Amino acid sequence: MASSVLDALTAALPVDRVITDPDRLASYRFDRAAFCPAGHPIAVVRPTRTTEVAATLRIASEHRVPVVPQGARSGLSGAANAIDEGIVLSLERMDRVLHVDVANRFVVTQPGVMNAALSQVVAEHGLFYPPDPSSWEFCSIGGNLATDSGGLCCVKYGVTSDYVLGLEVVLAGGEVLRTGRRTVKGVAGYDLVRLFVGSEGTLGVITEATLRLRSAAERPMTVAATYPDATTAGAGIAAVLNGGVVPSLLEYMDRASLRAVDAAFRMDFSPDVGALVIAQSDAGDVVGKAEIELVAQQLEGCGALDVVLAADPTEGELLLAARRQALPAFERLGTTLVDDVCVPRDRMVDLVTGIERLAERAELTVGVVGHAGDGNFHPNVVFDAADPDQVARARQVFDDIMVLGLELGGTITGEHGVGMLKRDLLASEIGSLGLRVHRDLKRALDPLGILNPGKVFTP
Amino acid sequence: MASSVLDALTAALPVDRVITDPDRLASYRFDRAAFCPAGHPIAVVRPTRTTEVAATLRIASEHRVPVVPQGARSGLSGAANAIDEGIVLSLERMDRVLHVDVANRFVVTQPGVMNAALSQVVAEHGLFYPPDPSSWEFCSIGGNLATDSGGLCCVKYGVTSDYVLGLEVVLAGGEVLRTGRRTVKGVAGYDLVRLFVGSEGTLGVITEATLRLRSAAERPMTVAATYPDATTAGAGIAAVLNGGVVPSLLEYMDRASLRAVDAAFRMDFSPDVGALVIAQSDAGDVVGKAEIELVAQQLEGCGALDVVLAADPTEGELLLAARRQALPAFERLGTTLVDDVCVPRDRMVDLVTGIERLAERAELTVGVVGHAGDGNFHPNVVFDAADPDQVARARQVFDDIMVLGLELGGTITGEHGVGMLKRDLLASEIGSLGLRVHRDLKRALDPLGILNPGKVFTP
Repeated sequence: MASSVLDALTAALPVDRVITDPDRLASYRFDRAAFCPAGHPIAVVRPTRTTEVAATLRIASEHRVPVVPQGARSGLSGAANAIDEGIVLSLERMDRVLHVDVANRFVVTQPGVMNAALSQVVAEHGLFYPPDPSSWEFCSIGGNLATDSGGLCCVKYGVTSDYVLGLEVVLAGGEVLRTGRRTVKGVAGYDLVRLFVGSEGTLGVITEATLRLRSAAERPMTVAATYPDATTAGAGIAAVLNGGVVPSLLEYMDRASLRAVDAAFRMDFSPDVGALVIAQSDAGDVVGKAEIELVAQQLEGCGALDVVLAADPTEGELLLAARRQALPAFERLGTTLVDDVCVPRDRMVDLVTGIERLAERAELTVGVVGHAGDGNFHPNVVFDAADPDQVARARQVFDDIMVLGLELGGTITGEHGVGMLKRDLLASEIGSLGLRVHRDLKRALDPLGILNPGKVFTP
Repeated sequence: MASSVLDALTAALPVDRVITDPDRLASYRFDRAAFCPAGHPIAVVRPTRTTEVAATLRIASEHRVPVVPQGARSGLSGAANAIDEGIVLSLERMDRVLHVDVANRFVVTQPGVMNAALSQVVAEHGLFYPPDPSSWEFCSIGGNLATDSGGLCCVKYGVTSDYVLGLEVVLAGGEVLRTGRRTVKGVAGYDLVRLFVGSEGTLGVITEATLRLRSAAERPMTVAATYPDATTAGAGIAAVLNGGVVPSLLEYMDRASLRAVDAAFRMDFSPDVGALVIAQSDAGDVVGKAEIELVAQQLEGCGALDVVLAADPTEGELLLAARRQALPAFERLGTTLVDDVCVPRDRMVDLVTGIERLAERAELTVGVVGHAGDGNFHPNVVFDAADPDQVARARQVFDDIMVLGLELGGTITGEHGVGMLKRDLLASEIGSLGLRVHRDLKRALDPLGILNPGKVFTP
């Protein structure tokens, strides 16, 4: 069967689109998720245009072969991992920004464009595409759409789905659907756009997106505050969130993260520092200065050890460096499993202190960094992958953290997606009726079940 | 058959929930749409809790009886009009605001609460629910959710779907689905929330909503500018939209609207005034003053006849009065058919001048008011309902305006919904494949087709 699919693909597509060389196939098997298995695909197809995506899905449907849509493999949940005997459909060659409409402030782009590349193109027109995952330099817009990615500026600007006006989507049978609009508002029919966004490649393959833009923001002004512990830091964060200013960034690092960064990059934090909070305003000029000074006062009034206002954007970037270096610092300590849990904003301290207790019980380092303004945290579980006992404890503490998040009224994933990593936990959050509705919708759009089967939920 | 359904309903529900008296039934037949027929229902059911909604839908499914979910009947597309031999399911008695969470800034509400009542409750906590349809005093939150309503402040704050975190929805078979979340971010599974929002009662019945809130805005500062014609007014609007400030309101009135308001309420506009633009800033204090003065400069620099900055909020409200009085003014001139078309923002002048030409050709008054900041306009077609020729011309010019909107890259509805009024035009916008996907999704969630059948699209 595999050979007849391959024959059909190579007959239908230009010569360099279909990869079957085992070494090259191997490099398309995994995204960046830990603990997620990947199968051995029969081919990687790398289309350069929508008609080629359509041909691939038509053939896959005819042969009942599973298809895994894939962006830049920067995902953290295994949603893009290959499936045995399936096709990996990589959108990496559909990497052109097609059109920037300055007057109406939107951009039309192919999915393979990197987030950073898109940001740069629109910046040349004085415009701004806010969603900024930490992986922005090496994650694709298509992947951002598939997982409804967030980032650091969500606290002010929202997430990917807040910016999607329209999509071109190839359906499971190869039909090309154009849905959405180019207007600011529109309510003609169901919101198919937001059904496809965040569906992790299980409902269709996005081949083009029309994305809303904003006027460029000003260069950010930054303040950093250190605290003795999570409780005082949480009070500072709450003071900001309830204080009238909407910061453009509001990040948190716990003691374990600060120790890791200190060890790796000699940041020389004082030993009594148990938490760091970083905030920015991008309002610019007089307003920005007023905002950041007010935020600094709010952070200071809640038991801060020290509050530093950056003198300029360069110094601001230095203050942010500790946060940006957290992941590399953890990676120096061992294998890391990055979690992504989101709780109502006022449950932050319960989450962070609960994670501290779980880490102690598991006798593992769990460093928490996160988007405090959204209640969205990334606990990094550090372990020795060569030690089966540590691996088991890492997996256990990871699951325990998600249960804790749910108990606090939160969600198992704020921005990384479900993929394979959290598939078996989804029912705990959405319930059996929710799962039934998911399966019913999946069946309506993909009756043969060829699109990324087994991701997000089991068929 | 009707009597066995009625028997089942009266047996399952408390005594005052089921209305069958013909006079009372009659008052639940129509929403406010023109040109939309309504059937004769067998009953109006007015549940007070979710379990009663569930019982109603279970019985309707068992008897294959259509159900029309209904809010405050303020809709303008006929989506809430009764169906022959069907049940009208009025949510008007589920009218309690259940919980305001100040720390996490959300409100949990039943669907029968009026938009204005919800706004008032959250305002008492210093919070703000932005979506503000013009009908806000007599439209319900459930209706707002069903049509994904907009309003006057969308240009800064977005529409209803931007504020929905979670929903309780009773499915066609009577199952109670809870979907969404209470956190700011969350990507666990498909975005069912936004699939139900805007689906006009065709996919489920919303019985509870968790809505995101913002900090209260400051009292608005207002500027009004008059222009000789649409072209100069459009230039002023474009100058504001491209000028860096995001106004909290940016409204437009054309010459016919100004004449109507003048005739009805003696506003004494100078005869050379052909268009009015009103803008507001709700940033408050120094920032608000800086914003509104900059907007005034931008409006002035584009050929304005006169620019008036309100001295205080009361004077600002007087400047807005002309806009708010437009609908009542048209209603004094005859029967009115309110359209709702949205185009890319830079096509505003093409739309407005195109409508002027269509009105001349039809020999009818068509007054255009609208949310210029969003490219969303409401042409009001005025006609004599007793004159069949005028009725035919009114209907024709209405359709022509929608075709014009589509030709300009727009949508047939920016905020009123499709209902029955625009059902036959939907395919022109979303295409036959889009329509097929709508039908597939409808069938997945409502296999018996009992939920508001014939609305939005034909089965």
